[in-house]
Amino acid sequence: MEEIKVFCPATIANVSCGFDVLGLALDWVGDEMTVRKIPEKGIRISKIVGQELPLEAEQNVAGVAGLALLDKSDYEGGFEVEIDKRIKPGSGIGSSAASSAGAVWAMNELLGRPFSKLELVQFAMQGEKLASDVAHADNVAPAIYGGFTLVRSYEPLDIVPIPTPSELYATVIHPQIEIKTSDSRKILKTTISMQQGIQQWGNLGGLIAGLFQDDYDLIGRSLHDHIVEPIRSILIPAFDDIKANALSAGALGSGISGSGPSIFALSKGEAMAKKVAQSMQETYQNIGIDFDIHISKVNSQGVKKIT
Amino acid sequence: MEEIKVFCPATIANVSCGFDVLGLALDWVGDEMTVRKIPEKGIRISKIVGQELPLEAEQNVAGVAGLALLDKSDYEGGFEVEIDKRIKPGSGIGSSAASSAGAVWAMNELLGRPFSKLELVQFAMQGEKLASDVAHADNVAPAIYGGFTLVRSYEPLDIVPIPTPSELYATVIHPQIEIKTSDSRKILKTTISMQQGIQQWGNLGGLIAGLFQDDYDLIGRSLHDHIVEPIRSILIPAFDDIKANALSAGALGSGISGSGPSIFALSKGEAMAKKVAQSMQETYQNIGIDFDIHISKVNSQGVKKIT
Repeated sequence: MEEIKVFCPATIANVSCGFDVLGLALDWVGDEMTVRKIPEKGIRISKIVGQELPLEAEQNVAGVAGLALLDKSDYEGGFEVEIDKRIKPGSGIGSSAASSAGAVWAMNELLGRPFSKLELVQFAMQGEKLASDVAHADNVAPAIYGGFTLVRSYEPLDIVPIPTPSELYATVIHPQIEIKTSDSRKILKTTISMQQGIQQWGNLGGLIAGLFQDDYDLIGRSLHDHIVEPIRSILIPAFDDIKANALSAGALGSGISGSGPSIFALSKGEAMAKKVAQSMQETYQNIGIDFDIHISKVNSQGVKKIT
Repeated sequence: MEEIKVFCPATIANVSCGFDVLGLALDWVGDEMTVRKIPEKGIRISKIVGQELPLEAEQNVAGVAGLALLDKSDYEGGFEVEIDKRIKPGSGIGSSAASSAGAVWAMNELLGRPFSKLELVQFAMQGEKLASDVAHADNVAPAIYGGFTLVRSYEPLDIVPIPTPSELYATVIHPQIEIKTSDSRKILKTTISMQQGIQQWGNLGGLIAGLFQDDYDLIGRSLHDHIVEPIRSILIPAFDDIKANALSAGALGSGISGSGPSIFALSKGEAMAKKVAQSMQETYQNIGIDFDIHISKVNSQGVKKIT
């Protein structure tokens, strides 16, 4: 295979109780990317549609991730990359992760899969480091593995794929403001109370158990974040109203997607996800805030080939 | 049924990464208790063998738990209780929880099971409150449900039973010193760093996923506690050596049982649990510390009737 076209999913990191460790991939929201082998060593980004992003490989997250892969490969050539960027940077649904993960996943396919998923995550994390100064894995891991993933540990990197109930749908609303991941990290506290910690790992344990058992009620009971959400939500317009209305409409839970400003809700079934979308968008319409809104099944595959 | 004799399991709370939320029940270590209906209202503790403990119902954890049950019951009579106390109080393997849980489980059987397991936990928590001033559930929940249990939340009380891999064995060594639960709580810090929190909920998530998948390796990788163990272990003689030797012998993980001083190790298979026991006891023998040692399958049933 000389060329491949892939879908690169948007992702929701943190998922309320899983700050910095949990993420999930979306199925119907993402970028498209074409990657082809070229004889020259290195990464050439030949085209980016949809967003103004750097074409220089060292300045582009897909380029940096690809270079990390090439550095560990004995392949003598290089890759040309075209990106159809549909996820807006700064939206909080893993825009940089989609590009990083998609690039290395596609390159690995073209080379006959010499690298494991865990290695692909490590390469893609270099893209994340370029984007936000932190080589975090909570978006690139679900983008590559699909479904829910848990980053159990960074040293050594240990990614645990978590099963995804088949009727789990996400609604994501993106108010048209930009919050830089780095700013959103700056306002976080560096200490938490022991009681907050106990609540958080109780909920994270409940969420993992709920996902393993298709227990939607338990998933809903566990989707709380008493640590990060109260602080970061200050930066997001009408966060409390959006969340309250999503829950009233029947969502299992709702919270900040990654570092925001997007707000996600999880629901059982597509019909409920649409009803939740309705209530969320009415909230922004009523106060005159522009937004994008997405409804998607939780993707269980991650980056995939587009035929 | 007018009388019942029950086995009341010892329990390991916290289990490294699950401080205040996780616990497991042992199968071969525990008290025995006989409970019979009597016409008079109230709880009469007629006999305690094995330990010096108060016979007054209001001063005894089994009595207090039983009174909490009677208070919610329309049963007109009372119960007489005999306790064969085999778990040493202050050992850190849920001595008070075994009595509280056993009493209310037995009474519920005699009344034809009017109460749910969750309600029984709530009654038994009153015994815990008497014992340590805190109505914690991380010992009484596994004693009543069996296996591993997660206390997802206290308000409202939400207990999540977690499946137990069939080859999971515990080794518990109890150095003959007593640490009061209340003292052991006093030395804890009230704040933790965000990084410690992230490590902890990453590990707790990994442990829950490992238990659901019978993934012994993941269970082992997740059994870490960077928050409480470094502080509480100061009170336990030769903790670091015991733990290091248990891991060298092949244990999946090792840590403080509840608030100590007992130290537990989890192993795959009974043969390994015995080998781990050997290494732990040699450590105390070499430095001349008296101890009890227990090996047990992880119990998947909780309190049970003895025929």
